[in-house]
Parts: sequence; C-alpha cells; structure tokens
Amino acid sequence: MLLRKYHIAIVGATGLVGQEFIKILEKRDFPIASVHLFASNKSTGKKLFVSHNHVELKELTRNSFDPVDIAFFAAGSEISQHFIPRAVKRAATAIDCSGVFGMDEGVPLVVPEVNPQDLENHHGLIASPNSTTIQLVVALHPLHRVNPIKRIVVDTYQAVSETGSSAVDELNAQIKLVLEGKIGVPHIFPHQIAFNVLPEVDVFWDDGYTKEEWRLSEETRKILHNDTIAISATCVRVPVIVGNGEAVHVEFSKPIKPEEARTILASAPGVKLLDDPSVSLYPYPWSAVGTDDVLVGRIRRDASHANGLVMWVVADNLRKGVALNAVQIAEQLISKGLV
Amino acid sequence: MLLRKYHIAIVGATGLVGQEFIKILEKRDFPIASVHLFASNKSTGKKLFVSHNHVELKELTRNSFDPVDIAFFAAGSEISQHFIPRAVKRAATAIDCSGVFGMDEGVPLVVPEVNPQDLENHHGLIASPNSTTIQLVVALHPLHRVNPIKRIVVDTYQAVSETGSSAVDELNAQIKLVLEGKIGVPHIFPHQIAFNVLPEVDVFWDDGYTKEEWRLSEETRKILHNDTIAISATCVRVPVIVGNGEAVHVEFSKPIKPEEARTILASAPGVKLLDDPSVSLYPYPWSAVGTDDVLVGRIRRDASHANGLVMWVVADNLRKGVALNAVQIAEQLISKGLV
Repeated sequence: MLLRKYHIAIVGATGLVGQEFIKILEKRDFPIASVHLFASNKSTGKKLFVSHNHVELKELTRNSFDPVDIAFFAAGSEISQHFIPRAVKRAATAIDCSGVFGMDEGVPLVVPEVNPQDLENHHGLIASPNSTTIQLVVALHPLHRVNPIKRIVVDTYQAVSETGSSAVDELNAQIKLVLEGKIGVPHIFPHQIAFNVLPEVDVFWDDGYTKEEWRLSEETRKILHNDTIAISATCVRVPVIVGNGEAVHVEFSKPIKPEEARTILASAPGVKLLDDPSVSLYPYPWSAVGTDDVLVGRIRRDASHANGLVMWVVADNLRKGVALNAVQIAEQLISKGLV
Repeated sequence: MLLRKYHIAIVGATGLVGQEFIKILEKRDFPIASVHLFASNKSTGKKLFVSHNHVELKELTRNSFDPVDIAFFAAGSEISQHFIPRAVKRAATAIDCSGVFGMDEGVPLVVPEVNPQDLENHHGLIASPNSTTIQLVVALHPLHRVNPIKRIVVDTYQAVSETGSSAVDELNAQIKLVLEGKIGVPHIFPHQIAFNVLPEVDVFWDDGYTKEEWRLSEETRKILHNDTIAISATCVRVPVIVGNGEAVHVEFSKPIKPEEARTILASAPGVKLLDDPSVSLYPYPWSAVGTDDVLVGRIRRDASHANGLVMWVVADNLRKGVALNAVQIAEQLISKGLV
C-alpha cells in the first residue's frame, strides 16, 4: 500500500515553537512529501536540517502556499491574519496556533484527545487553542464526560518561553544581573521577571481580566461544548523557561472521589498521572520539558465544596501546548481523510 | 512622662527573619531597655549591631528568659516547643512565629489589623500566623466586615526565603549551575527549584493537602472568628527570593462591585492598593521587598460567581509575613497594658 505523503509548511520556523514543530514531525514520522519553512526576512536564505535534508528558510509571499497541503502557523497573530486567508484560497489546510481565529464561529478549535469530531466540518482552517487551555481540557474532559463540570477556578504558573526566545533571553540576562547585584530594564515583560512573578499575561481588557484569562475561559467552554461552565482564572507569568503549571479547583455535578478521578485519568488519552505525595511525586515544569503528555497530580477532595476536586496540571507549553497539538490535529485530518 | 522600656529577646537572631526583627525594631523605635539575642551554638559569641550597641549572640539555656519581658521566637518549631514553656514560666511574654501553637485553644492567633482584641486573654503566649495567612486576612477582613465571606479559593506563589537562608543559597546555586548547562542536586527542596515551581510547601498529610494549605485554611477561620468559611488552597513554591503572591477568588454573602472593594481597601489598615491594569500597575513580589503593607491589585468581578471577586495579594514574607506582624503584636500588647 502506498501511503500518501503531504507537502507541509511551517510558518515561523526559527522560533521556539517552530523548532518544536521540526522535532515533533521527525519524531512522529509524519508522512512528509516536502517541507517549506518560512521565517522573517532576517533569517531568509539560512538553512535548517529537517528529515535528513537541508531546507532553506524563505520569506512568505502571495504564492508561498501553492505547493502546500498543510500549513502550520506559529508566527504570531498578524502573520496568521494576513496569510491564512491566502493559504486557504490556494487550497492549503491551515492549522493556526496564533489564537486569532479560535473563537470565530465556523472555525474548529480542536484538542485531538477531546473534540476530534469538530474537525469534520472545517473550511480549510483549524485553530489550535492556547497552551493553558489545552492542558486544562486534556486533564478535565475525561472527568467531565462522566460527571459534568459546573465551575472551574484555575490559577496558572506560565513559562516565559510562551513569549518567544527573546523572553527567555530577557529572563536569563536579568537573572545574571540580579546575581551580580544589578538591575536590568525590562523590554519584553512589563516588569522584571527574574526572581519575580507577574499577574499579567497578554493584554488587559476593560473588565480587569487579561486576554489570556478570557481565552482560557472561552476556549475551554467551546472545546467542551458547554456554554454554562463557569470559569474564573488568574494567569501569572513565572521565571520558568519551559513548562506551565495550573492549580485547578473543579466543581462537578455530583460528588467525585479522588480515587475515582485517578482511575479515570490513569487511562485517559494524553494524560500521565503522577500522584503520590508520600514520595513527593507530582508533576512540575522542569519534569515536563520534552514530554508529550499532560501531567496530573495532587488530586484531592476540594475542602471547600462537596462536589469539588483540586488538582495540579503541568505540560510542556511549547510541545503539547502548541506544536504537538497542531501536529496531532494534522494527523487526525489525515486519518479522517479531511485533508 | 517616663515611658516604660522593655527587655526583649530574639530567638533565632541570625536567620533571615531574625535580621528583619532587628531592622524593624530599630526602624519603629521600639521601646527597648535591653536586647538579648539567641542563636544556634555555631554563632554563639559573635556580635550583632542592634540599636547602636554590639550585642553578643548567646545560646539558649533554662535561665535565658529571666531578664526578658518580651521574647520573639523565630527559630523553628522544635526550639519554640522546648523553650516557650520555660520563657512563659519565667514571666516573659512569648510571641511565636514557628506555627506550632497557632491552632491551640487558648492561644491567641493575632494579626493586629484584624483581631487585636484576641490579645486580651493571653496567658503569656501569642502566636503570629503563617505568612500566607497574614497577607490573606489583612486583605480580606475589611471586605468580610461589610459582606461576610462564604468561600475562598486561593493559590499561592511562595518565596524560597520562607525556608531560610540555606534555601536562598540553594536557589542561587542551582540557577548558576543551570545557566552553565549543569544540574544541581536538591538538598533543601524536594526537587530542583531553579526555573521551576513546586506544589509542595511543608509536609503532606493523608488527605493530600500539605500542612501549609491546612494552616492557611484553619488560621484564616480562627482569625476571622468564623468556622463556616469554606477554603480551598494550593500552595506552590516559586523561584522568588522574597515576596509571596496569592491569587484569591472570594465568594461573599451578597454581590460586591470591584469599585466598592477598592474604596474599602484604599483606606484599610495595613493595605496598599495598587490597581490600575491600564498602566500595568499591580503588586508583584519584587516590588514588595522591604515594604510593610499588604499590596492588593487586579480586583475584578469573579466571572464564575455572582457574589464573587478575584484579586491578587502580595506581601514581603519575612516582614509583614513574620517579623513585622510579631513586632506589631508586641506594640499592641504594650499599648493595651497587656505585658
């Protein structure tokens, strides 16, 4: 049997997420016919090593997507807004990680472990959710299926790599300065991030929430197909390079025992249970780096609500948080014959 | 008028908290007749500069408290358990920061801005609460007075200095190793803390909560004189040296507008309001270092509950979190003629 192979594009190939895309496509033996890498014009002409080939980085043009079947967009919202309509017009299927289209009606917002069926009616564009949303719904959906969720209170501990490699550089540079007794001027983050935490991820809206907190709430409801789940979130940037943590307090429709949740999550797709406090076994960002799974631990009764559970959820924000989820979407499209 | 002065002792004088005690007593012109400094025997004989005098560090003995009026205990639970009964027997008033006595019946657990009246019936021992509790109740009590709180969900971002100077050293050493591409073996914390966050503060109990989470809940109820407030907490250690953050989601008895809460907190004792997202004005640990106030910002409607508010609370964990609160307790005892 001859398996079909696909011409793929990575837009934003030199970024931290772009690099993850390349690693993941290789590791998963994605059926690649050809790879087209796009980056900002300062990288144009350079070459990256992909699947045993040197591939030249190109600048995006109106015709870039002519030979492309599947285009992964990981270069920010402006690039996605400008080029995705062009890619779709040229019959490429775009998988967008920028977040601009996720809440648009008619655009499937998909986490393959949770709502792969939403891919069926795509019109050439599929949105991959925000990293904080992805790890939350992968951990909660298996429980929600058996005991519908009423309310979620979630506070995040988010890594700087979400903001790109310049943010990682800023953290490292500031740390060195502080250790020398100096202070660095922040450029990427609104205040110093070294030895600090900042309750500001993405822009503030008029109601006092950030766009990140709004997305986490709205995307979760859209993916779980439930408009009534109440969600309260505070999103916080922490001086971690890779790996997002979430403290999650969930109210279900009826009581649920921690052991019941553990049993369900132990066999849930995309979840790895790490939950034995007696030996300090629980997930943390450093242990999540380079892993595909959403890691769940510290599952316990919510002391403040009869139907509640509290848990701690961690994932690699570049991998399952962005690139892996997008590649899994492409794999689903292929297996369902939707591309 | 001749003001009475007091013979005071600091137990654990060389620790991070002990150093804060010395700074705060000097800064606040505490009416000191004499200072007695106690430390572990490896420091005995050394001298510290306190109120223009060199004071020799001594080892604790059975008779150490004979000349002492007020003894501040900041040397951990074992020292407190062993020596506080001796201090009280010798007619000293002990103010304990170790946490071992805080939930004992008959022991006042006091935050002077919140429940100074509880000092009235002390029997020689007053407990100062955990740092996470102190900043939470200073921020919430002014609101609770006008609109009783039903439920609190709180997740913490706690600094390593709570664990002592060796923990600060471990963070700094690990950071340097990681920046050199190496890995350090953790000694103080259960896992690496550099570029990481750990959902483990203090020991785990059988129900899956940590002692820190339990204390935060129980102490809050005791200080607010309300057994029915439901509390759910996850306490997380972050790679910050000084300054604890708390994401707080509160349900009140009836609706409360963010503006109403801001008006109340703007004039609340011990609170400083820093709340203007339009210019990224909110508290963060780095900005809290060396400040006396509990800093509150990001006050907004809880999108998940009609009677809810969400806020972000930060304080210096060594200062208002421990030493300042204990000194304020002593000042209250003096002004009330209770010592």
